Amino acid sequence: MKVIRDSIHGDIFLTQLEMDVIDTPQFQRLRRLKQLGTTYMVYPSANHTRFEHSLGALHLAGRIAERLGLSIEDRINLRLAALLHDIGHGPLSHTSEELLERYLGKSHEKATEGIIQDSRVAGVLEDGGVSPRDVTRVLSGQTQLKKLISSDFDVDRMDYLVRDAHHTGVAYGIIDLDRLVNTLELTDDDIVINERGLRAVEALLVARFLMIPTVYLHHTSRIVDSMFLHATERAIEEGIFDYHSLVEMDDYDIQNVLRNSPGYVGEIGERFDRRRLFKKAQMLGWKALGDEMRDRLMALRRDIKTWKRLESEISADCGTEEGYVLVDIPPGPDLKEMGTRIVKDGEFRRIEDESLLVRILREAQKGQWSVGVYCPEELVEKVRGVELEAYLG
Amino acid sequence: MKVIRDSIHGDIFLTQLEMDVIDTPQFQRLRRLKQLGTTYMVYPSANHTRFEHSLGALHLAGRIAERLGLSIEDRINLRLAALLHDIGHGPLSHTSEELLERYLGKSHEKATEGIIQDSRVAGVLEDGGVSPRDVTRVLSGQTQLKKLISSDFDVDRMDYLVRDAHHTGVAYGIIDLDRLVNTLELTDDDIVINERGLRAVEALLVARFLMIPTVYLHHTSRIVDSMFLHATERAIEEGIFDYHSLVEMDDYDIQNVLRNSPGYVGEIGERFDRRRLFKKAQMLGWKALGDEMRDRLMALRRDIKTWKRLESEISADCGTEEGYVLVDIPPGPDLKEMGTRIVKDGEFRRIEDESLLVRILREAQKGQWSVGVYCPEELVEKVRGVELEAYLG
Amino acid sequence: MKVIRDSIHGDIFLTQLEMDVIDTPQFQRLRRLKQLGTTYMVYPSANHTRFEHSLGALHLAGRIAERLGLSIEDRINLRLAALLHDIGHGPLSHTSEELLERYLGKSHEKATEGIIQDSRVAGVLEDGGVSPRDVTRVLSGQTQLKKLISSDFDVDRMDYLVRDAHHTGVAYGIIDLDRLVNTLELTDDDIVINERGLRAVEALLVARFLMIPTVYLHHTSRIVDSMFLHATERAIEEGIFDYHSLVEMDDYDIQNVLRNSPGYVGEIGERFDRRRLFKKAQMLGWKALGDEMRDRLMALRRDIKTWKRLESEISADCGTEEGYVLVDIPPGPDLKEMGTRIVKDGEFRRIEDESLLVRILREAQKGQWSVGVYCPEELVEKVRGVELEAYLG
Amino acid sequence: MKVIRDSIHGDIFLTQLEMDVIDTPQFQRLRRLKQLGTTYMVYPSANHTRFEHSLGALHLAGRIAERLGLSIEDRINLRLAALLHDIGHGPLSHTSEELLERYLGKSHEKATEGIIQDSRVAGVLEDGGVSPRDVTRVLSGQTQLKKLISSDFDVDRMDYLVRDAHHTGVAYGIIDLDRLVNTLELTDDDIVINERGLRAVEALLVARFLMIPTVYLHHTSRIVDSMFLHATERAIEEGIFDYHSLVEMDDYDIQNVLRNSPGYVGEIGERFDRRRLFKKAQMLGWKALGDEMRDRLMALRRDIKTWKRLESEISADCGTEEGYVLVDIPPGPDLKEMGTRIVKDGEFRRIEDESLLVRILREAQKGQWSVGVYCPEELVEKVRGVELEAYLG
Repeated sequence: MKVIRDSIHGDIFLTQLEMDVIDTPQFQRLRRLKQLGTTYMVYPSANHTRFEHSLGALHLAGRIAERLGLSIEDRINLRLAALLHDIGHGPLSHTSEELLERYLGKSHEKATEGIIQDSRVAGVLEDGGVSPRDVTRVLSGQTQLKKLISSDFDVDRMDYLVRDAHHTGVAYGIIDLDRLVNTLELTDDDIVINERGLRAVEALLVARFLMIPTVYLHHTSRIVDSMFLHATERAIEEGIFDYHSLVEMDDYDIQNVLRNSPGYVGEIGERFDRRRLFKKAQMLGWKALGDEMRDRLMALRRDIKTWKRLESEISADCGTEEGYVLVDIPPGPDLKEMGTRIVKDGEFRRIEDESLLVRILREAQKGQWSVGVYCPEELVEKVRGVELEAYLG
Repeated sequence: MKVIRDSIHGDIFLTQLEMDVIDTPQFQRLRRLKQLGTTYMVYPSANHTRFEHSLGALHLAGRIAERLGLSIEDRINLRLAALLHDIGHGPLSHTSEELLERYLGKSHEKATEGIIQDSRVAGVLEDGGVSPRDVTRVLSGQTQLKKLISSDFDVDRMDYLVRDAHHTGVAYGIIDLDRLVNTLELTDDDIVINERGLRAVEALLVARFLMIPTVYLHHTSRIVDSMFLHATERAIEEGIFDYHSLVEMDDYDIQNVLRNSPGYVGEIGERFDRRRLFKKAQMLGWKALGDEMRDRLMALRRDIKTWKRLESEISADCGTEEGYVLVDIPPGPDLKEMGTRIVKDGEFRRIEDESLLVRILREAQKGQWSVGVYCPEELVEKVRGVELEAYLG
Repeated sequence: MKVIRDSIHGDIFLTQLEMDVIDTPQFQRLRRLKQLGTTYMVYPSANHTRFEHSLGALHLAGRIAERLGLSIEDRINLRLAALLHDIGHGPLSHTSEELLERYLGKSHEKATEGIIQDSRVAGVLEDGGVSPRDVTRVLSGQTQLKKLISSDFDVDRMDYLVRDAHHTGVAYGIIDLDRLVNTLELTDDDIVINERGLRAVEALLVARFLMIPTVYLHHTSRIVDSMFLHATERAIEEGIFDYHSLVEMDDYDIQNVLRNSPGYVGEIGERFDRRRLFKKAQMLGWKALGDEMRDRLMALRRDIKTWKRLESEISADCGTEEGYVLVDIPPGPDLKEMGTRIVKDGEFRRIEDESLLVRILREAQKGQWSVGVYCPEELVEKVRGVELEAYLG
Repeated sequence: MKVIRDSIHGDIFLTQLEMDVIDTPQFQRLRRLKQLGTTYMVYPSANHTRFEHSLGALHLAGRIAERLGLSIEDRINLRLAALLHDIGHGPLSHTSEELLERYLGKSHEKATEGIIQDSRVAGVLEDGGVSPRDVTRVLSGQTQLKKLISSDFDVDRMDYLVRDAHHTGVAYGIIDLDRLVNTLELTDDDIVINERGLRAVEALLVARFLMIPTVYLHHTSRIVDSMFLHATERAIEEGIFDYHSLVEMDDYDIQNVLRNSPGYVGEIGERFDRRRLFKKAQMLGWKALGDEMRDRLMALRRDIKTWKRLESEISADCGTEEGYVLVDIPPGPDLKEMGTRIVKDGEFRRIEDESLLVRILREAQKGQWSVGVYCPEELVEKVRGVELEAYLG
């Protein structure tokens, strides 16, 4: 077996097939996608990549597979699914996710499936005796292993919370990986946590809760992302690059597009390089907006044209050009039931019923959501006075 | 300045006066008081002591004093108050706290004041030009510095949460000490936290919340504590040692009393040495008990005689002697408002109003409280059937 | 399987038989033996015990057994040997080792074998289907597994270096346990390290090298140990306790002997409790002493009577009683060849031949050895003038 | 003061002037220079940058300035010097250092001075009331503070060793920053270490010693660097970019040059992207080469033309083109005396005289030096047989 040294998990052991997958250009591209996109503009140490995160997810998947005593075949597929789960990400990770959906009409999960089944990765898998379809079936949650790929304690989340904390220097994310791994149990059709693991799951959820405002939705990060999104969209519209290549591009490519283009795109690029960022003019919270207004704003996420028109009108009224007043509407907080089950005294219970903390954290997430309006420093006074409602028609 | 190396804070610098205080027999006794009492029976690495914790509290007090730009005199008094804040603890720390109150009618805080003002420590302080009364005034919250000694972010809590996590191996307690220290501000009559520190205070409260069931109220710990409490009480009643000496005793003394006494006391001592612990027969939670029953049980904490009678009657009915069925009623969860204020955009706000998480954590604490009934393994079946209510009269 | 939480290794899994061994009074006694003896007088956080260290050694032995693919039987014996390797230690660990040898004429290793084969531990092992003799055979190096119990990278050393660093706060001992475990290989009759592990072994040896003067032979530690040794020896001579019970005593027992005895023994006990330690009057290094003088002093280690006479005469000449001038002659530095082999390009090589660092560390150890002369502060001036040579006859 | 969060030091406080310097395009460029160049090809987490390292150096400089009680002016200059010490680095850090010297005839230190005195940085400094020349005087060692910028314990080294260990996941580099900072002392004309800091300096030197083969001179890293060096040089010769812009380029620029160029340059670029690296055909150590041969090879470092000719001839004889057999001759190990002084019992001593370990580490460094010959996998057999001596003329 081959060994790669990781900053979080230490030695990670890999099979020859896994090494062959890693050596495809599709996987090597992940070396050039920062895990936290533009967050490095706020936390200068946040330069870690999807490459190392994917290795970490494989490592955790392997530990869990061993703990659960999975069959050899399940182990192989689970490890490969974890390794490949992010291969469809666009440049700067989540930052380009919205563009993938707007232009290609597909999530990064769909893009991932496409790459696994159609690119050189597929050939490598087949040469290694593994069916690409079996790997994507794990990823899309069609097997009993779905909880390990997508749930409140999946290997993706376990790895990124610990890794992001280590590399940003934010201490809140310290998570008890050992306990999480060692308290999982396999039932006929599900993966559950035994009683001894409840505190560890609570801690993981709290860590995520605390990292959302501190790292993932830090307001400067959101401003940088909005600028990036607008500039990249403009570059596509101006034909500077073809949006079909988004999933083949890396952070270096996109940085070059921004840096070497004329007009608006180039100006935003230069603002990045010199860190002359837009400022927040308004920040409107969940409670402050009220139910109706909030619903109307959220609706814009499904009606990009109106959203664009609204930005354009505000810009005009503030005496500036399109692209200089940005309205940032993040996806709503994740309020769905988790469905995670815990075994206590031999019985299965929903984690929400066992943990008051879990119930309240979900509710408390609303407080972390807000709509932002950003613009260059010299316009802040003017944009602060704008009434969003007046533009909603 | 003298340096002592600490497992948490690295080098701790001390003045000559502080070293002189440390070299008194009263302070050296803290070397022999485990910080977490009998918790080492559950977490074998939890052998750290009040001695090192007190040094840690001094160190944090010093850092904060520097950050706030306190006067030299305030700094000296604050550091000494932090150093001495636990000097009135009895053996096995919190485990003996109840005995102090029952027999001496005073809290360990009062005992602390007594030692600072009346023992050799007083003389050392005076020789160093410091008034013992000024130090106790800080401790009893009569100065502007009270928040640093007793609040949701006092130096005691900051140190013990981090230290207990490090020495038990429980990872949840990782706390951002830097951020906490660096975001405190001094106003005319209070110490407040600035906006940048809100996440760090939340994290500290969550860490404590998670450590309560995992460490501080771990059920095995509670059983060991109950056994210890009953055996020590019996030793006092049988005249094996004089309760007045409780605040001069250390863990070694009490272990010897238990180990070398005849009868019940000796038997419990032997059970400790061989780890043959009582088992839990009943565990009755906040909700399960209901308001009325809970109030009646809580009332027993102020009526020790009835509490004792109840245990004695249950023991008899289960066919065993007094001391073999233990009813453990912990103090109620701390539900008081915190009063901690935060400065945001130049205004003072209550932390509860700014943080949903803080509000819900207080509510969620109730779920961590329960009444336990413990007995030797062979009696568990029988004691499980006992209806507590029937004995409340 | 049962789980115990450890500050170093996280969750440690144990079989029922291992738990039964742990629950014997002989093993529980290790809870009350500090790993670093009196070092807590220098590093206040150094309160960890032989109990947790023994669990850690078992854990590492288990990981290595798995890595090497040992037979079930070898795994069981190896884990138990690691668990029990320190069960023959006297109070305050190494501090009492010399007494064991002087009075009982046996090393703590021999005492360990005795306990495994003759105490209740033997019965528990037999009930679990394990031959006590098989366990001691591993410990005494009669099997192929001897390197794992006694060598430059044995589980004892791997655990204690990391643990001592964690609990003292001294950072030098950080060791790459993962790499050490993962690069061991089993040959027909030996355990070797593969090439990838060379740096990890070097790092482990350097860590130990750095911790010797900083922790293990810190001069204050050596003074405390010498005081303890003299007081305990006197207690035995005065019949205060029977030396046969040494291997059954714990730190609490010995502290009580010192604390509650009359005369010299009690005075030393009080000096501990108040930290009024002897001071160093002379410190004579390897080079300074010269070959001849060094040999003559080392010879005293095998001639206790002459050593005692020498101390007694110096005391008299300095106008004080026996027991107030202590001459401390530590065992010589460990200069033996290691014999550890490394596999490189398929060939076995001696680690000394592959690593200049290993060769020079052994030589450099001489610089860490010295003879000390200690006495109460008020005698330092006088004792400093004493010429040791004059008393060697 | 402004705060930036760092993964190593936690909160780093910055003055307004320091923030203004950081916001220049020259400094922002450091965000896009990886600290360890191409090492991320071996250690996937090694993505940290000169930007965060420079902030870390400033932070340590500030702590030391405070510890030493420097004048306000010295503090300001020292912190700025530490902040700016790497601003003259070319892309991929050390990897481009040789190119700077070959083409621009100046070290990165000289380039640094140029940027501080001539670029926008100079204007910002002057606006803040600081003379650029005063900052470069600190950097070039013309003041009493030189030890803090260039010595065995300078802030550069203290920061990078800890940071590189954290981000690669290699544990050996753990260093006692607290002790290092707290044991420095200022004399009339020098900075010395007091006796208590000796172990910390030893540990730092050992950490560096262990990280050299594991990280800094890892053989895969050396291969990648050689490939990069040859491709970049070819790009300059073919006029693809102008070497004068080297100190303005970042990792993104150079990656684009390699990726988008025709011929040899583009092929090496593609090999990076897909990780199809050259392999080592020969590795000739210090001892194996012998004095004469070693001297002749080292001489090539000062005679690039001959070095090139030699590579070219070997390539031809192996039936391949120029650029496919690379001869890698690293700079000789640093064998100069350190001159660091230590204060012991009030006297100044050279650290070499106090520490055997320091003496032997210098000697042992020779074992870490070797000459490498690399080529594509299919040529390895052939190139292995080449006798370098035959080509030295």
